[in-house]
Amino acid sequence: MSDHATTPPTPPPTTPTTPAAVRLPSGFRAAGVTAGLKASGTPDLALVVNDGPDHHAAAVFTTNRVEAAPVTWSRQVVVDGRVDAVVLNSGGANACTGAQGFLDTHRTAEHVAEVLGVSAGDVVVCSTGLIGELLPMDTLLAGVDAAATALSRDGHEAAAVAIKTTDTVHKVADHHGDGWSVAGMAKGAGMLAPALATMLVVVTTDAVVDRADLDAALRAATAVSFDRIDSDACMSTNDTVVALASGASGVPVDAGTLTTALTAVCADLARQLIGDAEGAAHDIAIEVVGAASVDDALEVARAVARNNLFKCAVFGNDPNWGRVLAAVGTTRAAFDPTTLDVAMNGVQVCRAGGVGEDRSLVDLAPREVHVLIDLHAGGASATVWTNDLTHDYVHENSAYST
Amino acid sequence: MSDHATTPPTPPPTTPTTPAAVRLPSGFRAAGVTAGLKASGTPDLALVVNDGPDHHAAAVFTTNRVEAAPVTWSRQVVVDGRVDAVVLNSGGANACTGAQGFLDTHRTAEHVAEVLGVSAGDVVVCSTGLIGELLPMDTLLAGVDAAATALSRDGHEAAAVAIKTTDTVHKVADHHGDGWSVAGMAKGAGMLAPALATMLVVVTTDAVVDRADLDAALRAATAVSFDRIDSDACMSTNDTVVALASGASGVPVDAGTLTTALTAVCADLARQLIGDAEGAAHDIAIEVVGAASVDDALEVARAVARNNLFKCAVFGNDPNWGRVLAAVGTTRAAFDPTTLDVAMNGVQVCRAGGVGEDRSLVDLAPREVHVLIDLHAGGASATVWTNDLTHDYVHENSAYST
Repeated sequence: MSDHATTPPTPPPTTPTTPAAVRLPSGFRAAGVTAGLKASGTPDLALVVNDGPDHHAAAVFTTNRVEAAPVTWSRQVVVDGRVDAVVLNSGGANACTGAQGFLDTHRTAEHVAEVLGVSAGDVVVCSTGLIGELLPMDTLLAGVDAAATALSRDGHEAAAVAIKTTDTVHKVADHHGDGWSVAGMAKGAGMLAPALATMLVVVTTDAVVDRADLDAALRAATAVSFDRIDSDACMSTNDTVVALASGASGVPVDAGTLTTALTAVCADLARQLIGDAEGAAHDIAIEVVGAASVDDALEVARAVARNNLFKCAVFGNDPNWGRVLAAVGTTRAAFDPTTLDVAMNGVQVCRAGGVGEDRSLVDLAPREVHVLIDLHAGGASATVWTNDLTHDYVHENSAYST
Repeated sequence: MSDHATTPPTPPPTTPTTPAAVRLPSGFRAAGVTAGLKASGTPDLALVVNDGPDHHAAAVFTTNRVEAAPVTWSRQVVVDGRVDAVVLNSGGANACTGAQGFLDTHRTAEHVAEVLGVSAGDVVVCSTGLIGELLPMDTLLAGVDAAATALSRDGHEAAAVAIKTTDTVHKVADHHGDGWSVAGMAKGAGMLAPALATMLVVVTTDAVVDRADLDAALRAATAVSFDRIDSDACMSTNDTVVALASGASGVPVDAGTLTTALTAVCADLARQLIGDAEGAAHDIAIEVVGAASVDDALEVARAVARNNLFKCAVFGNDPNWGRVLAAVGTTRAAFDPTTLDVAMNGVQVCRAGGVGEDRSLVDLAPREVHVLIDLHAGGASATVWTNDLTHDYVHENSAYST
């Protein structure tokens, strides 16, 4: 394994503390207010507005076939590549709510459009919270009015706070170019799995970019960030990642530079999502090397990331590497079971499919855990981030709607 | 949904109490002894011997590509359809133990053969316990000697007890024909998932059967029993189900009757495995009806059975049906999201993909939970049994090897 890096190729670890404030790129205003959708009385409605001059947009959505009404709506909104505003609510997912749910999303977009003087067809709607409940529309629409009044160049943090559900902290990230910047906000703490996590993300930039470049850059960025975190293997009905470009900086940015910037911001946010996953006590990087293809590496990494027994063992600080091999063995990836190597936090506990170094040498006390699996089948690699399975995960998710 | 049964087509519920004693069919002897493989000092080595006149055998094994040494060995043993003895140990899985592990399995079979006066090539070996540790062979072989001495027509219960790992009770079942019978023993309480659970099962019958019929009957029986329980989505490296037929009753039994009998015994044992799954507080039947094919029904049932958020909700007695729909939406099965129906314990909480009856009407206090999903896409159906995800599951599996 000596020819492979022993640290995962992802951003440095973060702990779920309040991040440094991130400011909106030029051309944007935002707000976060308390509409009253959440019983907790915490902020629950956010608005992000692109004042231009450009109104380029791209988005990716959940691949769950049971998708929430706002996802169905917003897919249509972004088809023409123009978005003027994004309205986001926590306190209710508006999923599995039938025709009435879709009418409610439509009415929300119409109301935002009316208040801002834009077209409803350019308003993305995102919702998050409990599935299977209709939203209290009077409360929500009054919240839109309040948010529109509160819109400000300084509103990025407030908007990021208002989209939290079970998140313990709000998540923001940024990237600064020469005279231009990218900012991002995210929410998500459970139902985190590819493709995409249960999460809402708004990325804004004032760079002058080609509309097609923005779309390609966003897809490339999400493929190696949000698509590679898997907290609990549960795919959401509401996942939305939307990117908006105002062009207000006046600085043209090429496709490659834009992709690098968006990838940095998305990877930072993805790492924050794992760091704040419901009940987690460990953040675990599953790095697969020596794979015949990236797809093989991802299949193996995800199989391990989704293995409840392995995740329980990590919670118990137990380097039970047999559970890693048992998970690898369920995949179709190319490998020979008698040549598999596994290292946990630098200790090669499994060598050539059998017993390696003494498992008692592994220290799993730190929050961050690194599992390195060498398939010895090729030169491809991939890393998937996950969490351990804990009492607190069970506790939080056995009492979510009741 | 009214055209479908509202109770799952599986045996009545059992609770994890000690089952009534099951006797061996004629032609068999068995024993269970304490070899000293387990620190707990409880029985850990079992022997089942077929004295004939027939020595027909069939077996199915884990499909995990990382398979334990005893699985590799036993696959070869059963190829010719003859088995004279099965030796089973708890206290160590002998998986991921390399060439030495295979030599140890071979040596075990040779020793059993020598003691019993049979061929090592007719001795099936099964092991269960922690992965990645070599077995203490002197202790194990001395246990074989002790078991051979203890062999008895009354040894079925003792053998069933000796194969337990984290099982709280031993599992046995039987079926009685006219002058012939089938008996079964099983162990397994975690790492339970298709194909097959983490389990060892020995089924014995004194019926006079065709060897090919025994093989077909066992495969048919496991496909609708052990392959349809999924406690924790974790596939084992050691799963083995072996069926032995002695012909000692002198009663010929046709293929259909044999299949029915084996299916009854396997379904009974499978239900007992779910009833004793590690830390479980609920046994959950996921019944999918109206599917375009049995494969579709199984894919949907398994997706729900493996959804941690749903399983946590059931633990919390929370009828969070949105999590059922979110899981269904991840499958490739034929369905229209706007026609999905879901009932929980008889309350139709989701109708036509939207809100149905009040979720507060669902009573999840009983241990047994029934989730009925109608895909409205055809006439096929299937039921998968699973468990909830509990604090005790996390506790037990975070402290297994340490």
